Amino acid sequence: MRRRVVKNASSRILAHAGLVILNPFEHRGHWRDVFKNDSPIHIEIGMGKGAFILQMALKNPNINYVGIEKFDSVIIMAIEKIANYQLKNLLLIRADALLLDTIFATNEVERIYLNFSDPWPKNRHEKRRLTSSLFLKRYEKVLTPKGVIEFKTDNSTLFEYSIISMTKELWIIDEFSVNLHRNNEEIVKTEYEEKFTSLGYPIYYVKVRKDDYR
Amino acid sequence: MRRRVVKNASSRILAHAGLVILNPFEHRGHWRDVFKNDSPIHIEIGMGKGAFILQMALKNPNINYVGIEKFDSVIIMAIEKIANYQLKNLLLIRADALLLDTIFATNEVERIYLNFSDPWPKNRHEKRRLTSSLFLKRYEKVLTPKGVIEFKTDNSTLFEYSIISMTKELWIIDEFSVNLHRNNEEIVKTEYEEKFTSLGYPIYYVKVRKDDYR
Repeated sequence: MRRRVVKNASSRILAHAGLVILNPFEHRGHWRDVFKNDSPIHIEIGMGKGAFILQMALKNPNINYVGIEKFDSVIIMAIEKIANYQLKNLLLIRADALLLDTIFATNEVERIYLNFSDPWPKNRHEKRRLTSSLFLKRYEKVLTPKGVIEFKTDNSTLFEYSIISMTKELWIIDEFSVNLHRNNEEIVKTEYEEKFTSLGYPIYYVKVRKDDYR
Repeated sequence: MRRRVVKNASSRILAHAGLVILNPFEHRGHWRDVFKNDSPIHIEIGMGKGAFILQMALKNPNINYVGIEKFDSVIIMAIEKIANYQLKNLLLIRADALLLDTIFATNEVERIYLNFSDPWPKNRHEKRRLTSSLFLKRYEKVLTPKGVIEFKTDNSTLFEYSIISMTKELWIIDEFSVNLHRNNEEIVKTEYEEKFTSLGYPIYYVKVRKDDYR
């Protein structure tokens, strides 16, 4: 997503300290206390403007959602959209996903969503891709034994890279599609996905797990 | 491929006993003696009319090729096309691929090609798909430790099925494409592929190996 300069982003984030967790590292291993229930935790990394995670949280009140976004200028748009809903099952964190294992303890997360992640097409930026081995190892650290990653993208090159990267890291493919919306109108879409699908382009999708190796 | 009734297929096959190996089981473990050299062996399963394996054999004289086809009515077309070339590095076998491990010994094959295999779309025919776990286990039995399978198809449903099936059987994805001919004009195409690509449809491709587990 293109990032614009947003005025007073920091102070606007501070104004929503209930929705945005400013000290996420303090809650590592105790997120169920923060949510005040035992529901499973699903997270989205790089949630952008937050439409996907908001829809998911509205649809599934018995799942706790955490949206993670690195940039002030992006998370502020999600915050101001989501704040009005006063949802008890949705929190946001501004952090780099490389810190994931300092935010969540082992077995604390049941599902990770990666939606339309930045493709970082240059080879020298490979490590920044959210499906590089560096990130995959972080995801493994926080997921439950039966935990899964769901990844979707319209970028065929990123998809190809990700499939190879995931199987190299010994993730098993549970579900896989080269045209996600071919047979399924029920799937919650991001803003970007809605636009892209309406133009007739395919959305690539994969769901992976590691439980056979644990 | 649609199969037609072909007149006198058996006797026409017998007429090319040098090209078609009629007693393949007798050569198990000794294919290098049949080819009279130590070149690696690459096989194509379900070679159809044989255009792909013929081109490959012409292009790579230092590789021994074996084309395998189940049906008399299909293999006869490959035979009569290939016979004129008098190639020393290409042989054909009429057999069911489920017998692969009775034709080749462990470590005897370096590469297996599966090109545009029959999708067998009905669930009850799953086991007939050349990428079902049943067949994958056969391939594993004959491949060298660094051996690979190269699979291509235009059928997205078969591709999706195959990717899941392969990673379930713990094959690692080495190369992967959702549009094989996007950046590559050099690849040898089957007759079917040539036609399909010229219509602008994507060809799906994957190359898998198992060596990390051995």
